[in-house]
Amino acid sequence: MPLNQAARELIESGALAHLVTLNADGSPQVSVVWVGVDGDELVAGHLVATQQKLRNIRRDPRVVLSFESPNKNAVGMNDYLVVRGNARVTEGGAPELLSRLAQTYVGPGTPFPPMPDPPPGFITRVEVTRISGPGPWSAD
Amino acid sequence: MPLNQAARELIESGALAHLVTLNADGSPQVSVVWVGVDGDELVAGHLVATQQKLRNIRRDPRVVLSFESPNKNAVGMNDYLVVRGNARVTEGGAPELLSRLAQTYVGPGTPFPPMPDPPPGFITRVEVTRISGPGPWSAD
Repeated sequence: MPLNQAARELIESGALAHLVTLNADGSPQVSVVWVGVDGDELVAGHLVATQQKLRNIRRDPRVVLSFESPNKNAVGMNDYLVVRGNARVTEGGAPELLSRLAQTYVGPGTPFPPMPDPPPGFITRVEVTRISGPGPWSAD
Repeated sequence: MPLNQAARELIESGALAHLVTLNADGSPQVSVVWVGVDGDELVAGHLVATQQKLRNIRRDPRVVLSFESPNKNAVGMNDYLVVRGNARVTEGGAPELLSRLAQTYVGPGTPFPPMPDPPPGFITRVEVTRISGPGPWSAD
């Protein structure tokens, strides 16, 4: 499904993504990552392949990403965005994606990755299946 | 296991918790909640029982809570705390817990819940089984 404008704006503002994947025993695994938008997909870059989350996605593509919004409702509770989707891992392109994201998540002009000759790495691509959470992105 | 001091400090600073539970089909469910510390357990309050996360915990107690830290490492990536645990739901006490948490999450002097005669509600209690994530709370 398409990402709506409000969801896209929160993600592109540099909100951190809490990425949930599923371990082999069915338990949840969480890491906090930088995420960008590529068309209607969410994308995250990884320089190394030995990460639990990549193994998990290859076994079970069901993921959730949640993002905090600085906006609070009338009683003081923060809005937040929850994106469910199906993920896949593709090879290459991680340094370029991470460099782009670092300009938002760290700041303009940030050199990234912080090493010479980084490996091509991997990209996690998430096809969005549902958008929820209190905020303008949600029809709930 | 005991919560270490660094983890306790981040949680009690008012960091929002991304609470992951498991749906009946094994997919992850996330909501962002206020969390407090009670002894070595994490506690969250709910005024209504008709929440997906409570149904999920009663079926499968495995949960993860993740919290962002404002601290960044040398290359600009945020620290974060990941707490795995086993949750259970107890009856009553939600208004008192939420009132206590509102003093941190909204601000001192906040009246909460924002209604007369709130229901006793429910508390989710999480016994911690593992602490991880980049930051001073982690032995990783």
